[in-house]
Amino acid sequence: MSKFLNAKYQSLKAYVPGEQPQDQKYIKLNTNESPYPPSPRVIEAASKEAVERLRLYGDPECRVLREKLAALYGVGIENVYTANGSDDILNFSFMCFGANGAVFSDITYGFYQVFADLYGIEATIIPLKEDFSIDYKKYLGLNKFIVIANPNAPTGLALSLGEIEEIVQTNPESVVLIDEAYVDFGAESAVELTKKYANLLVTMTFSKSRSLAGARLGFCIGNEELIKDLNLIKYSTNPYNVNSLTQLLGIAALEDNAVYMANCQKIIETREYVISELKKLGFEVTDSKTNFIFAKTNAMSGEKIYQELKKRGILVRHLSGERIKDYNRITIGTAEEMAVFLAKIREIIEVK
Amino acid sequence: MSKFLNAKYQSLKAYVPGEQPQDQKYIKLNTNESPYPPSPRVIEAASKEAVERLRLYGDPECRVLREKLAALYGVGIENVYTANGSDDILNFSFMCFGANGAVFSDITYGFYQVFADLYGIEATIIPLKEDFSIDYKKYLGLNKFIVIANPNAPTGLALSLGEIEEIVQTNPESVVLIDEAYVDFGAESAVELTKKYANLLVTMTFSKSRSLAGARLGFCIGNEELIKDLNLIKYSTNPYNVNSLTQLLGIAALEDNAVYMANCQKIIETREYVISELKKLGFEVTDSKTNFIFAKTNAMSGEKIYQELKKRGILVRHLSGERIKDYNRITIGTAEEMAVFLAKIREIIEVK
Repeated sequence: MSKFLNAKYQSLKAYVPGEQPQDQKYIKLNTNESPYPPSPRVIEAASKEAVERLRLYGDPECRVLREKLAALYGVGIENVYTANGSDDILNFSFMCFGANGAVFSDITYGFYQVFADLYGIEATIIPLKEDFSIDYKKYLGLNKFIVIANPNAPTGLALSLGEIEEIVQTNPESVVLIDEAYVDFGAESAVELTKKYANLLVTMTFSKSRSLAGARLGFCIGNEELIKDLNLIKYSTNPYNVNSLTQLLGIAALEDNAVYMANCQKIIETREYVISELKKLGFEVTDSKTNFIFAKTNAMSGEKIYQELKKRGILVRHLSGERIKDYNRITIGTAEEMAVFLAKIREIIEVK
Repeated sequence: MSKFLNAKYQSLKAYVPGEQPQDQKYIKLNTNESPYPPSPRVIEAASKEAVERLRLYGDPECRVLREKLAALYGVGIENVYTANGSDDILNFSFMCFGANGAVFSDITYGFYQVFADLYGIEATIIPLKEDFSIDYKKYLGLNKFIVIANPNAPTGLALSLGEIEEIVQTNPESVVLIDEAYVDFGAESAVELTKKYANLLVTMTFSKSRSLAGARLGFCIGNEELIKDLNLIKYSTNPYNVNSLTQLLGIAALEDNAVYMANCQKIIETREYVISELKKLGFEVTDSKTNFIFAKTNAMSGEKIYQELKKRGILVRHLSGERIKDYNRITIGTAEEMAVFLAKIREIIEVK
């Protein structure tokens, strides 16, 4: 850190992303990417002409992409905001809506605490229940900026739409942000509720279900006035934040939406199979509605499992934190990758 | 704006980017893009395999790209930071280094004032001299965060390296940021000085001289500790901010650096020709060291020229602001585009 750094950031602890080995030698089950490549239309969209057009700035309004998203989700274009990954939206939302304090779970996406720290926002941390489910009644009537990952990470558990609606309804003086990064893998989306509640913002991403993690494309849906707030920050920081080629790839991905929803279905089936196999091996596994599972065994520490898998060429994510240190978060890969994973797990558990 | 928006942003005035018509019917000389397409290696780098790899997150450290930049600019990899466009770097720099106030010109990149407003930073505005040159002696010994676009926009004028060094040297308690977005078109870079001064940060971009405006790639060079500060903010907001395909395109562009430097030479030649022709028509034109020119004529208002050109299919940038409202900022296109531009200008001036 330099001596010039603003004093208010000097004790800031940044987010630590999962390992991103660049040598491709691992079966990579550690950062919740899709095991399936982008769809044919996306590959086609990255044409020579599209790459040549990179000499020009893209459309800062991302108009065509937002129209496509609006059509798919049954909202108006004025209700859609696109960004350089959904982290960008979370960041701006903490800036815009966090002044009276923010509320989130003790076990959730680790970035929420970083954003709160960055902007000096007081965070109210609500512990998950013993079974890792969200104690949704504790979120009623707080009137602070509420951020809920639904389904939650790394637990994989989802709230029902009824529970979310009760949270949104009882906090009319503050924004409720539902982070639906993993919603396509089996949870109910709250998008419909954005038509009814002016304080609800739903964020999503092309990184997980739509195989574009590297392209950086997130979006959110909400009341037009909330979208204007986010645009105010975007146009005051980085108006061209969404790459123009990424816009084209996003449009193409939406045109191939059925391909991606079929991929999600395959991932769900693989997930259920892996969960049942792990349970046979004595693992405790949460009822995940995401593209990852969250599992522990009494036979071995979470860290040891992580290390033994890594030795055998499989990367999973082990998170520290007292309540979850026995667990690993394991992204669902292809059926073939997960067969290798299960074989290695059997080997590890037996030779312990 | 929603009722939920943080009060401190409620009167914020965002940056207004230049027009980005998406229908391509204009000769576009309004946002300082390169008229030349990305080089052959860049086109090749956007391969099917690279697009398929977009399913994975990229390297958040942008290691290979930073190594290439470090080699090209003769610095260490620890002195290089890459970002989602250089706006991203300016934004983080105001956050990191602006606490004691910021200093910039009255006529310069309009975003500096927006960043200052966004973060509640007191801005000291130093007027350009009558001839639009920077009165560099007024920047000595201020010990506030100093931001200088060199060459400056929209004037196109450059400070000498000696003048910059004096500014850096006499402000040891604050960061001096030299925004070299346009440096490849004829000014002297201050990169060498970063080895000598811990308080100097030099930002550059692939958007202008390297034909990748739409791909979003900026970088900066400075003391390792300044780079760490920027990384702290990056990892606290959006660690994967640089698209993985963009990283590959950036690497390929650096491998084709000679192509881009030859393009810059062509643009310089075209610029000098256009300046001489405009002067023949009675225009006043600054001594631009950039890929744009800044010109006015007593024969017609700046706004009228802008409008008449637009009617004839040519977009230039007219900026408001008392001191510059008679001028237009005109990006240098290909020789062919500029021949059309000059023909239209002659038509406009003569029929007025």
